[in-house]
Amino acid sequence: MSETLAVIGEFGLIDRIDALLERAGIHVPEVSVGIGDDCAVFQPRAGYDILVTCDVMVEGRHYLPQFISPLDLGRRAMTLNISDIGAMGGVPRYALVSLGLRSDTAIEDVEAIYLGFMEELKPFDAVIIGGNLTKSEGANFVDITLIGEIAAGTSVRRSTATPGDVILVTGYPGEAAAGLRILLSGRSAHDLENNPLVQAYNRPSHRAAEGGAVARSGLASAMIDTSDGLVGDLGHICDKSGVGALLVQEKLPISPPLREAAAHFNQDPVDLVLGDSDDYELIITCPPEHADRISSLITALGRVQVNTIGEITSTPGKIQLRSVDGSSRSLSRSGWNHFAQ
Amino acid sequence: MSETLAVIGEFGLIDRIDALLERAGIHVPEVSVGIGDDCAVFQPRAGYDILVTCDVMVEGRHYLPQFISPLDLGRRAMTLNISDIGAMGGVPRYALVSLGLRSDTAIEDVEAIYLGFMEELKPFDAVIIGGNLTKSEGANFVDITLIGEIAAGTSVRRSTATPGDVILVTGYPGEAAAGLRILLSGRSAHDLENNPLVQAYNRPSHRAAEGGAVARSGLASAMIDTSDGLVGDLGHICDKSGVGALLVQEKLPISPPLREAAAHFNQDPVDLVLGDSDDYELIITCPPEHADRISSLITALGRVQVNTIGEITSTPGKIQLRSVDGSSRSLSRSGWNHFAQ
Repeated sequence: MSETLAVIGEFGLIDRIDALLERAGIHVPEVSVGIGDDCAVFQPRAGYDILVTCDVMVEGRHYLPQFISPLDLGRRAMTLNISDIGAMGGVPRYALVSLGLRSDTAIEDVEAIYLGFMEELKPFDAVIIGGNLTKSEGANFVDITLIGEIAAGTSVRRSTATPGDVILVTGYPGEAAAGLRILLSGRSAHDLENNPLVQAYNRPSHRAAEGGAVARSGLASAMIDTSDGLVGDLGHICDKSGVGALLVQEKLPISPPLREAAAHFNQDPVDLVLGDSDDYELIITCPPEHADRISSLITALGRVQVNTIGEITSTPGKIQLRSVDGSSRSLSRSGWNHFAQ
Repeated sequence: MSETLAVIGEFGLIDRIDALLERAGIHVPEVSVGIGDDCAVFQPRAGYDILVTCDVMVEGRHYLPQFISPLDLGRRAMTLNISDIGAMGGVPRYALVSLGLRSDTAIEDVEAIYLGFMEELKPFDAVIIGGNLTKSEGANFVDITLIGEIAAGTSVRRSTATPGDVILVTGYPGEAAAGLRILLSGRSAHDLENNPLVQAYNRPSHRAAEGGAVARSGLASAMIDTSDGLVGDLGHICDKSGVGALLVQEKLPISPPLREAAAHFNQDPVDLVLGDSDDYELIITCPPEHADRISSLITALGRVQVNTIGEITSTPGKIQLRSVDGSSRSLSRSGWNHFAQ
């Protein structure tokens, strides 16, 4: 039988997590007080702005424990926060983690979640400096606040796209949605472990390195990550910038596994690319003359491809898709409405 | 019928909260990006360290909705985070708020919670710069990350108490525990609205102004707030500082309402003062020669009294209580174990 939280208690768990973090042995000179006091304390670096984001994952809502290991859950929860920092162009530095846990939760699962956090933070020498553990009566939840930094004045917003800008997107949006659909179709999670779409859902990549390169170049007009799906997040750019968008269907990136899955589900792959999906890719807008340089900066990092998929228009809030035959249709921007019934 | 989250949805709620914050009209020059982008962005001030804390309140666990109004819930959730910043000596500046909400939650209740947050932040010109809303399948929860600042190098820790230091405490620890017990005893919450102990539980005060004065003085050796109860938090000082403590029974502050409630419950008031209670008072340790000056600094603020209740000893982890007759007994440090069955 696994040891549970009910057995070792809150302070016992805190000690175990402290020991885990201590073994990782990452010490950051700017942190003068880490875990174990009323607050964490760090010295901000001169010449940098501070970025802060927080995102929560609730069991049954944002993840299904039968489909994701505790290690992958930790990775994924941290990845989506790193993605938010990266989508402004910043670098993650400090994390605070709030966990709500049923008392029957196994200690080794909590430790695995933390190992997942640390695996994602390590490439940045970023550290967990605080947090909070509480008993949950219902669903477990993981709530992370991530603090990053960026050279002062260089963060890229979502509210500054301009008509005439082109729209770029990294990777293959929609793969995570297809992966989730495959998981939900009922085949055993074990059989699906190596399915690339299931991996896209359970082990998404953030694009923080790419976002950082874009921000440093000063060439982009706006940037956002695709946590609400391609059209959902392009919609956020449009709303905040007071613009519209025209997407060109044949330019949308569709990976072979996504095309295959769409055929299997008898669905148009374009709907998967455009719809709700937890991919954490980047949407970038820029003046047309900067598109090639931004693409080169991203591909030079060797991790992900980038495609120009359309342009920003002057009709506020309207997102259209132009088909191969030249006809256009308006796209609805459902996004991910957490309170829809 | 009240409008609910299911009706207006996540983005509808975000718009409502944005409008609420906009109406409050607090603009902070250091915040270049507030709510509504991937991250919030602020410029740290030269010469200041950054403090960060996070604390969560789960319905049914940390609060009972039948006993606390949404406005007071918002105040209390923010107060306990302000208390953590204040217990290091800092000033709150920026809050991020994660809410987990059932879809039948009334919008007006969510707005009232935010008004409670803002009421507590306003005296500091502190602002909400981000957050997160998600559907909860079970209990509602409020998770706040609060960022503060303090003159570089002046934060007061819990790990630096020294044998021979005296122990001071503000206010009347135990009042909140007595208030909760009164609420749980079954009388109508409405009848109890003006009960001072119920108010101590539902509308606790933080001591951030006092903590700030103590930190600026440089006279304290350690400081902590009493969120885990007087003995629980004194125990944290002892554990982190490698020391023990001797409390003197007749010096423990017992307010008349607390004494009365203890009599009513046929309980020793000293147990209420020492035990688990959500009071958010300060425990301060300092060399004996500094005690009077620290007391004066605190009472000069005119909000709360302060008492010297004992001294730090050299026996690690041992907390003793000396009775009026001169006998001593060891105190157990239960604290608040969130995972106890």
